[in-house]
Amino acid sequence: MKTSVIEELPNVELKDPILVEGFPGLGMVGNIAAQYLVKELKAQKLATLYSPHFPYHVIVDKKGGARLLRAEFYLWKNESGTNDFIFLVGDSQAQTIEGQFEVANAILDFAAQKNVKTIITIGGYRNEVESTPNVVAVSADSNLFEQALKAGAIASEAGTPIVGTAGLLLGLAKFRKITALCLLGETRGYLPDPKTSKSVIEVMQGFLDVKVDLKGLDEEIEHSKEILGRMRDIENRRVKYVEKLRRVEEERITYIS
Amino acid sequence: MKTSVIEELPNVELKDPILVEGFPGLGMVGNIAAQYLVKELKAQKLATLYSPHFPYHVIVDKKGGARLLRAEFYLWKNESGTNDFIFLVGDSQAQTIEGQFEVANAILDFAAQKNVKTIITIGGYRNEVESTPNVVAVSADSNLFEQALKAGAIASEAGTPIVGTAGLLLGLAKFRKITALCLLGETRGYLPDPKTSKSVIEVMQGFLDVKVDLKGLDEEIEHSKEILGRMRDIENRRVKYVEKLRRVEEERITYIS
Amino acid sequence: MKTSVIEELPNVELKDPILVEGFPGLGMVGNIAAQYLVKELKAQKLATLYSPHFPYHVIVDKKGGARLLRAEFYLWKNESGTNDFIFLVGDSQAQTIEGQFEVANAILDFAAQKNVKTIITIGGYRNEVESTPNVVAVSADSNLFEQALKAGAIASEAGTPIVGTAGLLLGLAKFRKITALCLLGETRGYLPDPKTSKSVIEVMQGFLDVKVDLKGLDEEIEHSKEILGRMRDIENRRVKYVEKLRRVEEERITYIS
Amino acid sequence: MKTSVIEELPNVELKDPILVEGFPGLGMVGNIAAQYLVKELKAQKLATLYSPHFPYHVIVDKKGGARLLRAEFYLWKNESGTNDFIFLVGDSQAQTIEGQFEVANAILDFAAQKNVKTIITIGGYRNEVESTPNVVAVSADSNLFEQALKAGAIASEAGTPIVGTAGLLLGLAKFRKITALCLLGETRGYLPDPKTSKSVIEVMQGFLDVKVDLKGLDEEIEHSKEILGRMRDIENRRVKYVEKLRRVEEERITYIS
Repeated sequence: MKTSVIEELPNVELKDPILVEGFPGLGMVGNIAAQYLVKELKAQKLATLYSPHFPYHVIVDKKGGARLLRAEFYLWKNESGTNDFIFLVGDSQAQTIEGQFEVANAILDFAAQKNVKTIITIGGYRNEVESTPNVVAVSADSNLFEQALKAGAIASEAGTPIVGTAGLLLGLAKFRKITALCLLGETRGYLPDPKTSKSVIEVMQGFLDVKVDLKGLDEEIEHSKEILGRMRDIENRRVKYVEKLRRVEEERITYIS
Repeated sequence: MKTSVIEELPNVELKDPILVEGFPGLGMVGNIAAQYLVKELKAQKLATLYSPHFPYHVIVDKKGGARLLRAEFYLWKNESGTNDFIFLVGDSQAQTIEGQFEVANAILDFAAQKNVKTIITIGGYRNEVESTPNVVAVSADSNLFEQALKAGAIASEAGTPIVGTAGLLLGLAKFRKITALCLLGETRGYLPDPKTSKSVIEVMQGFLDVKVDLKGLDEEIEHSKEILGRMRDIENRRVKYVEKLRRVEEERITYIS
Repeated sequence: MKTSVIEELPNVELKDPILVEGFPGLGMVGNIAAQYLVKELKAQKLATLYSPHFPYHVIVDKKGGARLLRAEFYLWKNESGTNDFIFLVGDSQAQTIEGQFEVANAILDFAAQKNVKTIITIGGYRNEVESTPNVVAVSADSNLFEQALKAGAIASEAGTPIVGTAGLLLGLAKFRKITALCLLGETRGYLPDPKTSKSVIEVMQGFLDVKVDLKGLDEEIEHSKEILGRMRDIENRRVKYVEKLRRVEEERITYIS
Repeated sequence: MKTSVIEELPNVELKDPILVEGFPGLGMVGNIAAQYLVKELKAQKLATLYSPHFPYHVIVDKKGGARLLRAEFYLWKNESGTNDFIFLVGDSQAQTIEGQFEVANAILDFAAQKNVKTIITIGGYRNEVESTPNVVAVSADSNLFEQALKAGAIASEAGTPIVGTAGLLLGLAKFRKITALCLLGETRGYLPDPKTSKSVIEVMQGFLDVKVDLKGLDEEIEHSKEILGRMRDIENRRVKYVEKLRRVEEERITYIS
């Protein structure tokens, strides 16, 4: 394995498939969204990507074995609609600059071979979130771009960088004549952020032929709120402590000078 | 030498060999165990692996020459049993991400060529050790896994990472249809830890056709206890000193405020 | 894309072209100069270089799409003169050592194919600038070197390093029988420095068949002065604050000892 | 230039040549020694090695041009003796792990092609030097090793690492059936250390067919002593200042507690 390798399951007929990518990143927004869609739609494993650019460790699984880090392609046969969906869920970003390009190209090779004409990549962008997280759409394809805006996304500021697999797939797709759109959900980014993933899925549902029940995601959101609450308590106490120290120090300086 | 190279000694007939790997890692658990088995079983050099991914220095040897860092394959002809054993002892982990995968693949190429059907990798995992260090078993092969558990190993928590050569051989073996098991000994990991290596060998003796006298290892354990004792003294004095400084500082603040 | 790739627009006839390179670097001197020449001369896009050694992100553009980092070749058909000009404007330096050499060689491959006989690379060197920034000329070609000196450049001290694409093109050009000159403008280097880019263009105009109006650059210079002024205010206040703190602390020590 | 490239001057007949390597390293011991031998023996340029693993900058030369970092092979036709000498003087070590191996192998390819049977590599090892710096000899060839010891070198402790080109050439030579010896001069290593280079050359003169006048090196030694003297003054003043600060602080703590 000197380059990324994709192991494919027995051949399946694909109906004009759309690839949706969710690798780890800010707030795990893309990863959570893609994983949730796989689960809710009961998408089936289609192929697995292994790469010498992923971290050099394995992870113990529930059965007592261990597995390499990987990215998995899942297929959802969209019986009633015009497009099947391939969801791509990654364990990790590639760990070197050249590896990032190699992995993105391996994904695009596979996509091209499966006749994928449209790729949706999902990520997060850092911002103080007011109430409902915004979703930014980025695409060189005006049609796809307009659809995303109509579905509730907003346009991005020029100059914003999109880092990692979500960005490179977007940038490299044009060399394969594949149309690509990136949806970036607004997130504080400190912790896995299912609330932002929900916003992204809601936008996707507004212009793609995918409908899922979002209740399961609401549970994850409640759970993450609790974690966030506890972390804020800890942070607040730390801030108070630091302030107290500073006050003591200021009084001392005042006293001495 | 643009890729790893394995230099092999004149051909030997191998009887269904099992490969046991011990590269440097946490507490040097695998390295000490593999080296001890080589010594006690008087295993013979079979092959040497050199790699441009190992550190770029040589080490002066006892005869006044110097040698590259390397990994050595030693063969133990198991006259009475059904499996010969190949012990793989490494000087160093590969130093880059891509190099880690390259070295692991070179080892597997060699193993496949020698008709190795089973690989045991050995490492350490960090924990406060109570009395006898625990040994964790990780394997996707239920047969091998059960044997290790019966021999005294315990199962690992899901999600644990296994880093480096011990992990990658475990993860990559399945692409060669090789069965693999990883044994991780519990260790504080600060220093070479022969006590944990002993626990690992005891587990191995419980399900593999290998029997060695462990007395020699007991001597190494005594020696490492002395070193540890001396290091604890130093650490205790340091901690007391830091505490004293803190007390002085607190009194000063109390005094001033 | 395992190596740098150059995408070329439909073939054009080139008249003994001179390549002028401006990649990002100290004070953005080369980048600003090359970009300004492209704009003022209305040079046309000739080719685009993409590379897996550039940073692994895309940048959102003004139309709502995103693009890979890249370097662009622009052609100025010099109707009245003897040399056409190719301006090479880069978004980023290559990010690894080996990548730096790979990108420089890809540029030289392209230059050789286009029959480029002369390359001018532009960069900055760090110095406290008195009034008008000096421009240093470096070339192994005595003819080109003398021309640059006559045009107002000064010679460089021996031993000075020239880092990155501007340096490597200069060093590697001789293997392609291409003559190369590097012009380095004196700059503090903290901020984009159009004033230094102007000095470089003035030198270039003195010995190359290029004439542009520099008024547009004067506007950029005014703008950068404002930014610099504001940053100095901030810095001055910070310095005063730090000095005050130090005084308070010194008084305290004096008082105590 | 994706790999190291060696540019060779018109062919010369070589009489059983010995290669002497001096790349930059601790105290610049090898580099200064090899450079001095080239100068004193008026050795002629034989070949130049360029590499994409060297730092990605060029250096301005005395004529106003610039050149890539490189390593140069110089030939000394030893008219009266049995061995010609090739001196290899490098500007820089390779900058990546894999690059270190690549450069060392390129050098060995060239050496093998020139029928080099013996390589001497020179470096430094860190130690407090008493009066005359010791020179350590390391070689797997007992004949060469004994000769170096008789000429005044001492044996090295087992386990000592020899880092970089001097070490790798020593370790990799055996794969080419080339005999190699490394001479490491004792040095504090803070500054270029011609005194240690002199010790190394004196050892070399004791068993190799090379004789040079060492007066020129004595001048360099005087010069380096002056620099060292000035640096010690600065260091002494710094140490006194830090001690004074500590005393003030201690008094304060004593006073308060």
